Amino acid sequence: MATFHEVVELKGHIIDSWSLPRAWDTIMDRGGNFTVQEITIGKHKSEPSYVRLQIEAQDPETLELIISELQQFGAVMVDAHDTQTEMVEQDGVLPPNFYSTTNLPTQIRIGGQWVTVDGIEMDVVIVVEPEHKHAYCKPMHEVQKGDKIVVGHKGIRVQPYERERGQETFAFMQSDVSSERAKVLAIKNIARQMRETHKRGGKILFVLGPAVIHTGAGRYVAELIQRGYVHAIFGGNAIITHDIESALFGTSLGVNLKTGEQVEGGHRNHLRAINAMRGIGSLEKAIEAGLLREGITYEALKRGLPLVLAGSIRDDGPMPGVITDMPEAQHRMREVVQDIDMTIMVASMLHAIATGNLLPARVRTVVVDINPAVVTKLADRGTFQAAGLVTDAELFLRELVESLNEIERTEV
Amino acid sequence: MATFHEVVELKGHIIDSWSLPRAWDTIMDRGGNFTVQEITIGKHKSEPSYVRLQIEAQDPETLELIISELQQFGAVMVDAHDTQTEMVEQDGVLPPNFYSTTNLPTQIRIGGQWVTVDGIEMDVVIVVEPEHKHAYCKPMHEVQKGDKIVVGHKGIRVQPYERERGQETFAFMQSDVSSERAKVLAIKNIARQMRETHKRGGKILFVLGPAVIHTGAGRYVAELIQRGYVHAIFGGNAIITHDIESALFGTSLGVNLKTGEQVEGGHRNHLRAINAMRGIGSLEKAIEAGLLREGITYEALKRGLPLVLAGSIRDDGPMPGVITDMPEAQHRMREVVQDIDMTIMVASMLHAIATGNLLPARVRTVVVDINPAVVTKLADRGTFQAAGLVTDAELFLRELVESLNEIERTEV
Amino acid sequence: MATFHEVVELKGHIIDSWSLPRAWDTIMDRGGNFTVQEITIGKHKSEPSYVRLQIEAQDPETLELIISELQQFGAVMVDAHDTQTEMVEQDGVLPPNFYSTTNLPTQIRIGGQWVTVDGIEMDVVIVVEPEHKHAYCKPMHEVQKGDKIVVGHKGIRVQPYERERGQETFAFMQSDVSSERAKVLAIKNIARQMRETHKRGGKILFVLGPAVIHTGAGRYVAELIQRGYVHAIFGGNAIITHDIESALFGTSLGVNLKTGEQVEGGHRNHLRAINAMRGIGSLEKAIEAGLLREGITYEALKRGLPLVLAGSIRDDGPMPGVITDMPEAQHRMREVVQDIDMTIMVASMLHAIATGNLLPARVRTVVVDINPAVVTKLADRGTFQAAGLVTDAELFLRELVESLNEIERTEV
Amino acid sequence: MATFHEVVELKGHIIDSWSLPRAWDTIMDRGGNFTVQEITIGKHKSEPSYVRLQIEAQDPETLELIISELQQFGAVMVDAHDTQTEMVEQDGVLPPNFYSTTNLPTQIRIGGQWVTVDGIEMDVVIVVEPEHKHAYCKPMHEVQKGDKIVVGHKGIRVQPYERERGQETFAFMQSDVSSERAKVLAIKNIARQMRETHKRGGKILFVLGPAVIHTGAGRYVAELIQRGYVHAIFGGNAIITHDIESALFGTSLGVNLKTGEQVEGGHRNHLRAINAMRGIGSLEKAIEAGLLREGITYEALKRGLPLVLAGSIRDDGPMPGVITDMPEAQHRMREVVQDIDMTIMVASMLHAIATGNLLPARVRTVVVDINPAVVTKLADRGTFQAAGLVTDAELFLRELVESLNEIERTEV
Repeated sequence: MATFHEVVELKGHIIDSWSLPRAWDTIMDRGGNFTVQEITIGKHKSEPSYVRLQIEAQDPETLELIISELQQFGAVMVDAHDTQTEMVEQDGVLPPNFYSTTNLPTQIRIGGQWVTVDGIEMDVVIVVEPEHKHAYCKPMHEVQKGDKIVVGHKGIRVQPYERERGQETFAFMQSDVSSERAKVLAIKNIARQMRETHKRGGKILFVLGPAVIHTGAGRYVAELIQRGYVHAIFGGNAIITHDIESALFGTSLGVNLKTGEQVEGGHRNHLRAINAMRGIGSLEKAIEAGLLREGITYEALKRGLPLVLAGSIRDDGPMPGVITDMPEAQHRMREVVQDIDMTIMVASMLHAIATGNLLPARVRTVVVDINPAVVTKLADRGTFQAAGLVTDAELFLRELVESLNEIERTEV
Repeated sequence: MATFHEVVELKGHIIDSWSLPRAWDTIMDRGGNFTVQEITIGKHKSEPSYVRLQIEAQDPETLELIISELQQFGAVMVDAHDTQTEMVEQDGVLPPNFYSTTNLPTQIRIGGQWVTVDGIEMDVVIVVEPEHKHAYCKPMHEVQKGDKIVVGHKGIRVQPYERERGQETFAFMQSDVSSERAKVLAIKNIARQMRETHKRGGKILFVLGPAVIHTGAGRYVAELIQRGYVHAIFGGNAIITHDIESALFGTSLGVNLKTGEQVEGGHRNHLRAINAMRGIGSLEKAIEAGLLREGITYEALKRGLPLVLAGSIRDDGPMPGVITDMPEAQHRMREVVQDIDMTIMVASMLHAIATGNLLPARVRTVVVDINPAVVTKLADRGTFQAAGLVTDAELFLRELVESLNEIERTEV
Repeated sequence: MATFHEVVELKGHIIDSWSLPRAWDTIMDRGGNFTVQEITIGKHKSEPSYVRLQIEAQDPETLELIISELQQFGAVMVDAHDTQTEMVEQDGVLPPNFYSTTNLPTQIRIGGQWVTVDGIEMDVVIVVEPEHKHAYCKPMHEVQKGDKIVVGHKGIRVQPYERERGQETFAFMQSDVSSERAKVLAIKNIARQMRETHKRGGKILFVLGPAVIHTGAGRYVAELIQRGYVHAIFGGNAIITHDIESALFGTSLGVNLKTGEQVEGGHRNHLRAINAMRGIGSLEKAIEAGLLREGITYEALKRGLPLVLAGSIRDDGPMPGVITDMPEAQHRMREVVQDIDMTIMVASMLHAIATGNLLPARVRTVVVDINPAVVTKLADRGTFQAAGLVTDAELFLRELVESLNEIERTEV
Repeated sequence: MATFHEVVELKGHIIDSWSLPRAWDTIMDRGGNFTVQEITIGKHKSEPSYVRLQIEAQDPETLELIISELQQFGAVMVDAHDTQTEMVEQDGVLPPNFYSTTNLPTQIRIGGQWVTVDGIEMDVVIVVEPEHKHAYCKPMHEVQKGDKIVVGHKGIRVQPYERERGQETFAFMQSDVSSERAKVLAIKNIARQMRETHKRGGKILFVLGPAVIHTGAGRYVAELIQRGYVHAIFGGNAIITHDIESALFGTSLGVNLKTGEQVEGGHRNHLRAINAMRGIGSLEKAIEAGLLREGITYEALKRGLPLVLAGSIRDDGPMPGVITDMPEAQHRMREVVQDIDMTIMVASMLHAIATGNLLPARVRTVVVDINPAVVTKLADRGTFQAAGLVTDAELFLRELVESLNEIERTEV
């Protein structure tokens, strides 16, 4: 029976990073077969290994599927080919055989030369400008007639994700999402990582859900902004509305944050907060006018931090500043994400997943939620670099501020 | 010390529906006081009761807050006043003292006459056209200069929600959200209610999340559409995309729905489905062209059912037909909701809450989710007419179809 | 049609405590009917109310069921009767018509005199010694031939549970179990209540699950013991085993509690801990011998606190000191519970429910778990005095210690 | 610097079954090092592979820890040694260096010969009778003075667990525990596996929680017993009590299973059920006397199936037949488990974990629960052969019966 085949090679820490076993696994799961043409295993864990495999499959579709999955483990086709492209013929519509990206660092071969793809994120396509040896990502709806889109799997090289080991924060945390672990330890590690990022001028993005305000933890985020640990904020209409509700009226969803008492039934204070901002015209004007004097929004806008607020179908209002068109909101998030080094997501499912979709795998990501499903869901959707912490958002943020205090104190 | 007071009365089944005890409770919780001026308790449960209370509070704000909460239990101020209105002076901005609605049937007094408010939903405002004795709801962002908006609490009458008793579906189900109850029984009750709604020409709205497709339960919804039990569908980009992915490729998120095997890694099939629809221009054209021949979308569009697809920040694509602007999507949902009699929400948190926000309390609502938090969240936000069923979406839909079969069979 | 009837009366804050509306509700839910023979509603909230109702039902069983449920709201039959008893004829077997208790303060009428039932807990029976005007509770399996057991519903008076209002801890907390509330506030309230209990010589019981140790939070409990805030501990084989594992090896389930690293695969350290204690003979001897020098067990035993460790079917070992016979363990728990004033349950489902079953309603109970189902389950089973906190066990205990520090500091 | 080393080898499908990469991973995680002395990778997936590794570590404890973990992946020390044993010197107390088992098939070398260990389960010890070339498992508390216990890691061979691939039930199911998968498919696979087990005379154990009765699904289990698909049942006091409550009174926790109505407040019917059985003396006598005529207990006892009912600290009663001493209950469970081939666990956390602890890895295990945490917890504790299904217990059992009907029909 005729088979279709292709030869690929994997190099580096393919044992330690499980690239090799996962490659074998994939081939077999997909119903393919392989022959080991050459294998050199590093004698010690520090030495790189090398393997060259011939992949076989009964039809070209299966072969292509296998190759596409192996590429995520760093497999490169041995036969030297440039990447193939096809032209977009209709705005917002891709050529059928488009290559869909992962969030891993990716190179494509143009004119015999490997070129890094800019703005990598998952599930988008690669636009190539061969004349400038330039390649970058675009989401489907932004492609335009004439764009050259990478198709098939030739001339593509993906750098696999290398898990960390031992005592490093993320190794420690990626192991599981159980709440039955020492979270104070994990929070200290996160604080240390934030401190290092801060010191080397890196940027930290916070993605926040409204529970941050409902629980009275907005003050900790405000403090982190003041101390320079926050460089961008993503959220929705709810967090901004309750942040302003709490700044204006001292309540969140009508609950007094100092006493825990329900002082206002239902949503009225929050509608009043939106109405007040709509009346004055914008959040910025409310600060200028001295109407808004504290809270996350205040601290962020005063420092000119990017504050991307994406609307949703369940919103009241909306609050001025909230972007109600989804592709536009994503576009703005994409711009901000480009130079982020670390992301902390707290008590937000919708915005956490949305941000996870846009983050390159190199961005250290911490997801904090009391619901293990949120953490699992993010990893399931491909944000495998996310370290999950199943814990209380409020107590997490309080502890994070204390850990940073402690670290700064010991530095002096 | 000076106190502020107001006299209100409650009539009807105020004992049975807990209006009276909840009224007393509210007054005390808010720090007010009351004097019972007159009370007549029905001697039997079928007889109506009557109570007239003088409410006292130490400041006018507290008094107003108490009155506003008592109105939700049906309290009416004894002093006969017309409702008060103020003019909108800036598009999208309300007068400060705006009255914020509940989702309960509401009347306002215009020129001494009680007029029912049209299009009632929660957390919006009431626009009055006194010359036409007409009043209707508007969300904040749609109010326009010159609109007369109800302010304060005078001349407003709310008809409280009366819980059902005994063996009726909703009484049975509203009691708790535990998964440790006989769900086959509950599903039979829901089927019976759907059957009755269907027979008297009522309309049923389905709000669906993508898990309906991932679990292979799309076929049951398609069957319900064919048999006339679905009159409108709300959902997002994900459900429509996976529905079309499964119609075109037999997979949902790359998993073959016949075998349960992962046949395609990641999101590629789903991007291909979106791309195919974008290529042909619209879902309707895909049906015309014979490209799309089965599934929920196909069945719904073939019958001209309203299919409102609201985008979100985490979407890929989007699929043609998805409304990406949130206020526009809400506007479309509001229109559809007007003549709905029953709503079934399955495996959707975001769209369930969004729809719950728009539904008047008279619409029988069933929320089905494997996660008890979704059910609880909906009720917490004020959709108290929602009966929750904590169970598996796929098995729920399968059982629902079987129960309807059984009911129809016994009718013949 | 013949009906059966009985006249009952309710007195006191029957409006405010919802006794009256719940009574009405129950009668109607059960298919009975009522006539209001007399009603006096306090004109102000501070004045007591009074109502006398004639209850009607179509059969004596329904009537009895209604009466038995009304008794939980404090209803007392108007016709003066002494309580009725029947003799136990076989050890461990009750007369068929036995009265099953609630956890509310209960009195029975013996010889025309109301006598308080000792050791009240739910779902047990009342043994009467008429000659001593004495009545006390017994679980079914402990009744003995000749015991006089209360049957039917005559001559029984239950003092209903009065909900608290406003800013008090428990009112604040009983409202809901959402994690989206300010927990730091709630923890401060709990600390305040512990402080007050401590100062007036009250006793606090801790019920602990193994996650307390796994998360490294054992140190906070140990500190609370040292400072006199813990007067008894209930738990199982797991918590004691991991506490001793951490004292001996610095690990819990093989994870180093200082570094978070897995230093020992599987359960070996924990088996070694059990084996070491079995070798030396008992926990007490291990302390004497200087083998066990820290941890919860050490601190508790050193102070002679009652430490009731009840085994379970999933246990390894067991550890010496664990009671493996369930009725015996319950018996020991019952003894300890008698003079407890407050209970804190952390990260334990099985032991929390077991303890909840034994606690009289007067014992202030706080249930802390990251899983909302645990909190809900406890309330569903009748421990309605339990205030739930859905949060992280480790961070809760850390914050509790800090709050107590703060309170003590401000007292000086 | 001096290092300690040992040479081990792995053979067979060590690539496909991930034994080799996991071995490498473990060595590095534990801070050891390795040298590949020889490696032969099968050229195709059907060919076995072979590797010989020298493991290095800085201290003998680390080396031993590494070796002990590698043994779980099938590593065998190259230097030929017999297993080492030490004598028990005190009943119920192990020699300090005891070898703690996994639930994988295990052989030990006695007198140069590999002998299979009988009754393997995890976290127990191996008793050797060298004279009979016999070895078997014992829990710690059952060891007796004079028993020879395996210590250290020499002469031990563990057969690693080989993951299944592709379309087989368990491969399909072990991949994840999300509820967002096609459960009807999975249930069909389970039914097929039960059918096969049944046909070849295999035995199926059901572990059941009380929600099976509360949801009215007891009838499906009763039907499965009648049709010969159940060979043993494990559960607790609650399931048996509610099963008998439903047989005697038609209720479970007072809820009528035909109508869903609460017909009896609180726990009274369930106490009456217990009392009735206590009165007659035993479940068997109740059947004889014609008092108990239906339900799970009735069907099981009528057929003489082993019904192991283990008590717990939260039990009322207990019901006759419930074993209240935990080591005794475990002992009885151990006996029954010996010849079980498949286990279905439904809606039970405590008993599922307890049973999981006792099951050898060869027993196909399905865990069904609506709470994903139960499924995860079981796998975390080492029952890695468990395939989890996050779904509704009632609907699962109903669907299972229907799937078996369908399979039997197509066989004819």
